[in-house]
Amino acid sequence: MSERKEFRDLADPAVAHEAIADLDIGGGVETVGLRAARGRVLAERVDATVDVPGFDRAAMDGYAVRARDTFGADETDPAVLDLAGTVHAGETPAATVGEGEAVEVSTGAVMPDGADAVVMVERTSERDDDTVAVRTAVTPGESVMFAGADVSAGERALGPGTEVTAREVSLLSALGVAEVPVRARPAVGIVSTGDELVRPGEDLNSDAGQIYDVNTYAIAAGVAAAGGDPVVYPHVDDARAAMAETLTEAAAECDLVLTSGSTSASAVDVVYQVVEQRGELRLHGIAIKPGKPTIIGRIDDAAYVGLPGYPVSALSIFRTFVAPAIREATGRPDPDSATVAGRMALRESAEEGRRRLVPVGLVTDGDGETLVYPVDKGSGATTSLTEADGVVDLPADTAYLAAGESVTVELFSPDVRPPTVLGVGEDDPALSRVLDRLDRPRYLSRGSRPGLRWLRDDVADVAVVAGPAEDVDARRLGGFEREWGLVVPAGNPQDVSGLADLVDRDLAFVNRPTDSGLRTSLSNALADLADDRGRTRREVTDAVRGFDLTRRAFESPPRSVAAGDADAALGLRATAAKLDLGFVPVGTQAVTVYADPDRTGKPGVERLRTELDDIGGVLSDLAGYGPAE
Amino acid sequence: MSERKEFRDLADPAVAHEAIADLDIGGGVETVGLRAARGRVLAERVDATVDVPGFDRAAMDGYAVRARDTFGADETDPAVLDLAGTVHAGETPAATVGEGEAVEVSTGAVMPDGADAVVMVERTSERDDDTVAVRTAVTPGESVMFAGADVSAGERALGPGTEVTAREVSLLSALGVAEVPVRARPAVGIVSTGDELVRPGEDLNSDAGQIYDVNTYAIAAGVAAAGGDPVVYPHVDDARAAMAETLTEAAAECDLVLTSGSTSASAVDVVYQVVEQRGELRLHGIAIKPGKPTIIGRIDDAAYVGLPGYPVSALSIFRTFVAPAIREATGRPDPDSATVAGRMALRESAEEGRRRLVPVGLVTDGDGETLVYPVDKGSGATTSLTEADGVVDLPADTAYLAAGESVTVELFSPDVRPPTVLGVGEDDPALSRVLDRLDRPRYLSRGSRPGLRWLRDDVADVAVVAGPAEDVDARRLGGFEREWGLVVPAGNPQDVSGLADLVDRDLAFVNRPTDSGLRTSLSNALADLADDRGRTRREVTDAVRGFDLTRRAFESPPRSVAAGDADAALGLRATAAKLDLGFVPVGTQAVTVYADPDRTGKPGVERLRTELDDIGGVLSDLAGYGPAE
Repeated sequence: MSERKEFRDLADPAVAHEAIADLDIGGGVETVGLRAARGRVLAERVDATVDVPGFDRAAMDGYAVRARDTFGADETDPAVLDLAGTVHAGETPAATVGEGEAVEVSTGAVMPDGADAVVMVERTSERDDDTVAVRTAVTPGESVMFAGADVSAGERALGPGTEVTAREVSLLSALGVAEVPVRARPAVGIVSTGDELVRPGEDLNSDAGQIYDVNTYAIAAGVAAAGGDPVVYPHVDDARAAMAETLTEAAAECDLVLTSGSTSASAVDVVYQVVEQRGELRLHGIAIKPGKPTIIGRIDDAAYVGLPGYPVSALSIFRTFVAPAIREATGRPDPDSATVAGRMALRESAEEGRRRLVPVGLVTDGDGETLVYPVDKGSGATTSLTEADGVVDLPADTAYLAAGESVTVELFSPDVRPPTVLGVGEDDPALSRVLDRLDRPRYLSRGSRPGLRWLRDDVADVAVVAGPAEDVDARRLGGFEREWGLVVPAGNPQDVSGLADLVDRDLAFVNRPTDSGLRTSLSNALADLADDRGRTRREVTDAVRGFDLTRRAFESPPRSVAAGDADAALGLRATAAKLDLGFVPVGTQAVTVYADPDRTGKPGVERLRTELDDIGGVLSDLAGYGPAE
Repeated sequence: MSERKEFRDLADPAVAHEAIADLDIGGGVETVGLRAARGRVLAERVDATVDVPGFDRAAMDGYAVRARDTFGADETDPAVLDLAGTVHAGETPAATVGEGEAVEVSTGAVMPDGADAVVMVERTSERDDDTVAVRTAVTPGESVMFAGADVSAGERALGPGTEVTAREVSLLSALGVAEVPVRARPAVGIVSTGDELVRPGEDLNSDAGQIYDVNTYAIAAGVAAAGGDPVVYPHVDDARAAMAETLTEAAAECDLVLTSGSTSASAVDVVYQVVEQRGELRLHGIAIKPGKPTIIGRIDDAAYVGLPGYPVSALSIFRTFVAPAIREATGRPDPDSATVAGRMALRESAEEGRRRLVPVGLVTDGDGETLVYPVDKGSGATTSLTEADGVVDLPADTAYLAAGESVTVELFSPDVRPPTVLGVGEDDPALSRVLDRLDRPRYLSRGSRPGLRWLRDDVADVAVVAGPAEDVDARRLGGFEREWGLVVPAGNPQDVSGLADLVDRDLAFVNRPTDSGLRTSLSNALADLADDRGRTRREVTDAVRGFDLTRRAFESPPRSVAAGDADAALGLRATAAKLDLGFVPVGTQAVTVYADPDRTGKPGVERLRTELDDIGGVLSDLAGYGPAE
């Protein structure tokens, strides 16, 4: 199709912003009750139609008087006035104040006719003869809040565009306004496409390539955060008529329709067809990474944006281009974000000549300076976002960011702050529980070796290392020991008795990657076995079926055993106990937490040390765990 | 009662903070679906129970191969592999990859057994003989996302205390988690007390001293903004059994009960009785203004805080002491506010030896510097808050803030910014419509004279002056003319023909205050009348019944006529037309907008000038309005 050329002619991001702004999402007005108005934006001016207060009001407990009757009165020579009655708050005054008279009033009472001031009760004494002695002079208007003093009828009370907070609610309440016209939330339809998608909470068949649908709920959350009203549609196969039908239905029901995953070759055909038949294609392809294959157009009366399928790309394009348009429609154009300045802790290459939004994490160094490190696990990895605090906007002509270079980070939200402590290293269930006791820690379970590398590069505050560690130039904060071995099916049906069985028998084994400290201990044990047998290490490991079949985290290999996919897996006694599997012990390894010596003064690091000192309760709860020797 | 002494022994604000923190509001856990989880805080750690992705996944459209079969291949010498089948995303692979074989895969497909890498389709050519030419070498793992590469089973995915945003929703979705345990929102009961209160939207009898209930909805909005779940109770008479009953009911149903207006002498007796019988009194009276008479305690199992009745005091105490406790309970302890530095534009006295939170407004001067001015219309005035941007915390030992002094303003919310233009002066319906066209203006309708004063003091950007103005040292931005006179009942039943009737007949008149430019024009016209008759001005004005009976805003006097309370009122032809009243013209006056010469470059002032230049449409829509001559 001819329009496909635009995909090669990538649009400048500024042009894409304009194209989405031109789609003119929403803009309607709805009337909501005062309790639902908080956070909404007034669509029209609200004028006062009543005076507030609606009457001249006593501002003190005391006596309503004619001020001139008190002129000259003081402690030694009080003015004595005749008591003419009482008015409480919420009462129609029965009395009036004539010359030489006073009426008792409580705060909030209607000022009786004739009175023009209130004497506070503390400066008066009531006497037995139905008179009151006033021991001070008051001026006309004193301790009276006049009708309309707060707001008067006809006044412009609140202008269009005002966000309604508790303060505006208080003014609207005072005016007796029970409902207000506010900018409507644009209805935003969300359609994820792909045969392989399964809604969270349902069963997944990984063997058939099924994955959970990430974008639908994540984008719905983004839409809601921007002030829109997300409308979730069932996900559809991207190559068939169902997609055209759902797009048409969503366009009829919503102000804006978002699809994700609809930018693959087969889906694009369907989108083009629908957009061409029923709307207008405005743009295809933005010169930005992630998120290049974005489509912008209209379907019937609705705006349409086709987002990429990968979660990081979809959310990044949503955040950069779509969320501002939704906020604009709701009358809150200001971005829900902020920036922070920092220094790159590591070098980051720019790879290609395209503008790039690099997800980055923040960490505070020992001097309180903010360091920035790239978090790139790929556009398909949701943790590229949860492990990041914001993005660095890398222009197309940047070749790389050097370590130490100053950068500006656009935070994901204004209240983002660096984690109190950044740890990198081995994953471990005892450590997870310790982390739960900290306030806003961040832990990247990349394995023991990467932990030491991040520590050496002065990025991480602490590294967590399992098994033997070479000389580490760092402060030991604490640690513990854990029992490891072979996790086997419950009851050990194959009667596995140790590592030798892996070598000598045809058992299907699942290993951990080389970054893992557990793997290092296994390799060392197999090396000892090789030595005992006078064979090379390679001969021994080659004899283990599945030695190169690795799973990244500590529970994954045992779960392969639980699923019946393996006879034995490298793992912890604690994991075997948790998953009700059998366990063949091989050894015990130390897990040690090391801190960067420059960062031991950080409150987050000190807090971690305290928790490690007090780790007894955590360890006694986990099978095979004990204190460090 | 003996505890009453605490009222005189005011507690330090820090002690009050502690007392409320000790009340320990909420802390429960509830499970919510993923769509309801946005903005909530995880109560527990979420560990991955599956690998994400759950299978080794092709990351590109292309061919799954054994990497070693491609070693040495390049453009001139491609590796030729036998085609062994196809796998699409969402399919269970039917084919495997043997030595010298390739399987076509689409992005997201399950990697077929035997393959360890993907060659992207762009570097291949399929041939007629069921083979594919691979024109590049790939390394093992290339273009493959391995099972668990994003998150692996057993990994700590999200820690307790994590706020759920779109990014966390994306990770939870990827894990297939459909619901999560989050911190419960504390239920906060709100009970306003006072016989005189009427809910907004209902009819009000001002003559009987009724006022709209401001605190219930305003505090409910504050509770919701802090993350609590507001529970609104009917307001109760503060002196009777109903209050004790409602307090007991609210305490049974809520984690925290807030009353407002319950700190008056009679209400306090009831509160003390309930708190003493069913709970515990912790504190009465905080050394802070506004809001001194606050009560903190427990009723049954609920926390209890008695807020003052005046809206400004109630919201100020809520914001300073209660909201932080609610946020803490929901797991979001960080205050929803920020600070900004500025210079006092005016002097502010401290009046008394008590810590004071002074509501202030912000304005940017011509150099971009932030000026701060106090906004104090009294604790009873809701506009003390809507006209303010934040508060200045004035310690007890401060005698005054001098003009020019540097202060720190605690903003009401982090996104508060100074208005684009600050205007002070006459209120006028044409001006209101012009203001609607501006972005975030602030206009204080204090009258023409105060407008000129604020301009002279270099606080306001612009002043709006109706009627004759003395020499004004300012730049004229624009203006218009409006017809004024006497507003009379529809049909003019008393046959009023002009000002002379006010003097010569016994007509009940309602005037405007001396700050109003309309009043100045009236006074001048009456002075002319006096001159014509050879009498003193005082003689003439004394003959007008109601000459000293003033209403603050331009519609209020005509509304007195509409309500049958007066025979004639000072007002505009436009107001008479709007309210369907009769009108007796007296004259035409100019309304002029003057700008501070140093501020004409402010974008907000320039925008106002543009709108004034284009005011024709506004004027033609209002009876008696026309362009300035």
